[in-house]
Amino acid sequence: MLNVQDRDVHQCDSGWVPVFVDQDKSIALMSIGFLLEKPDDAVVWRGPKKNALIKQFVTDVTWGELDFLIVDTPPGTSDEHISTVESLRPFKPLGAVLVTTPQAVAVGDVRRELTFCKKTGLRVLGIVENMSGFVCPHCSECTNIFSKGGGEELAKHAGVPFLGCVPLDPQLTQSLEEGGDFLQEFPKSLAFSALTDIAKHLLTEASTCSS
Amino acid sequence: MLNVQDRDVHQCDSGWVPVFVDQDKSIALMSIGFLLEKPDDAVVWRGPKKNALIKQFVTDVTWGELDFLIVDTPPGTSDEHISTVESLRPFKPLGAVLVTTPQAVAVGDVRRELTFCKKTGLRVLGIVENMSGFVCPHCSECTNIFSKGGGEELAKHAGVPFLGCVPLDPQLTQSLEEGGDFLQEFPKSLAFSALTDIAKHLLTEASTCSS
Repeated sequence: MLNVQDRDVHQCDSGWVPVFVDQDKSIALMSIGFLLEKPDDAVVWRGPKKNALIKQFVTDVTWGELDFLIVDTPPGTSDEHISTVESLRPFKPLGAVLVTTPQAVAVGDVRRELTFCKKTGLRVLGIVENMSGFVCPHCSECTNIFSKGGGEELAKHAGVPFLGCVPLDPQLTQSLEEGGDFLQEFPKSLAFSALTDIAKHLLTEASTCSS
Repeated sequence: MLNVQDRDVHQCDSGWVPVFVDQDKSIALMSIGFLLEKPDDAVVWRGPKKNALIKQFVTDVTWGELDFLIVDTPPGTSDEHISTVESLRPFKPLGAVLVTTPQAVAVGDVRRELTFCKKTGLRVLGIVENMSGFVCPHCSECTNIFSKGGGEELAKHAGVPFLGCVPLDPQLTQSLEEGGDFLQEFPKSLAFSALTDIAKHLLTEASTCSS
């Protein structure tokens, strides 16, 4: 997605040097993908090995000064999530952003993520509804392929901020396929305005959080 | 999805009695969801507890005579997958069906699942491409929201059967939301013919496998 699949992680005296996505070094990235010999290698690891690596990613990477550290987790409430919360606790994380799709089966999963956040004392910065409606590029009619409104309803029910909806958007997929810069390439797309609004909303939530 | 969310699992002398989806008892179901007190409860379990439950689901449920046992796993190649393969090995499982969406990021994950199957000696019955194109119900034009053809290409590359594509279909979502019988309700939908063709293809693969 970020066009860095062939890059390597280097070791320096103070730890692993993350991969920088752009020339300005404004985005630093760390992933187990960089540590595999071949991209098809399966990481057949049980929990304890995953937990050890998550801790290393927090403490042994030379992150330098960061505005934000974003951890993208798989769905669920298991090893990865427990270890991430535990490793970050000394750094007082701002909170969690929960992403759901609109339909009931997905919202049910995110409901359990909310319980997880409550149990572990992690503040919920808000909920995002992804794959939220599709506007046909041929006739401009909107179809709610995966139902509609489940994310907003859940946020209301749980008393947490609703950050916004991201529509299904073939231009977004195209950018992610090619590792392109979506914000530069498709400033008129529906997903562009949705994503920038969500980012602004999230920054507001985060600032009330750290103050 | 199967309209059984309020049902309970009972204990009998020979183990847990699974939940039967229909009156004819043609589909028996077991899920951790049936064992939770409240549907919102998060199962905050590390690997060892999950592994123990997976083993129990194979050995301590009174499955009776089965034509097929289908295990739906999360994505990945970790505890759930290792434990499922290990628990089923004495029963000589027919193999794995891998489901991907068409775009490169998803295909990359499934490529690693293929490596996992190879490492653990699990035969790959085939690959299914899900969310494969969307035909607008208003203008009948097709849009490949998540790109196109990634699943078929991967199957070709890996030398395993390609079982077919399932299009994005709001009628399928609607059935799953309401726990309805999709095959009864929407026999004319695109997903109907796709799913029945895949099932037939899969049965053929499975029969060459067990003979």
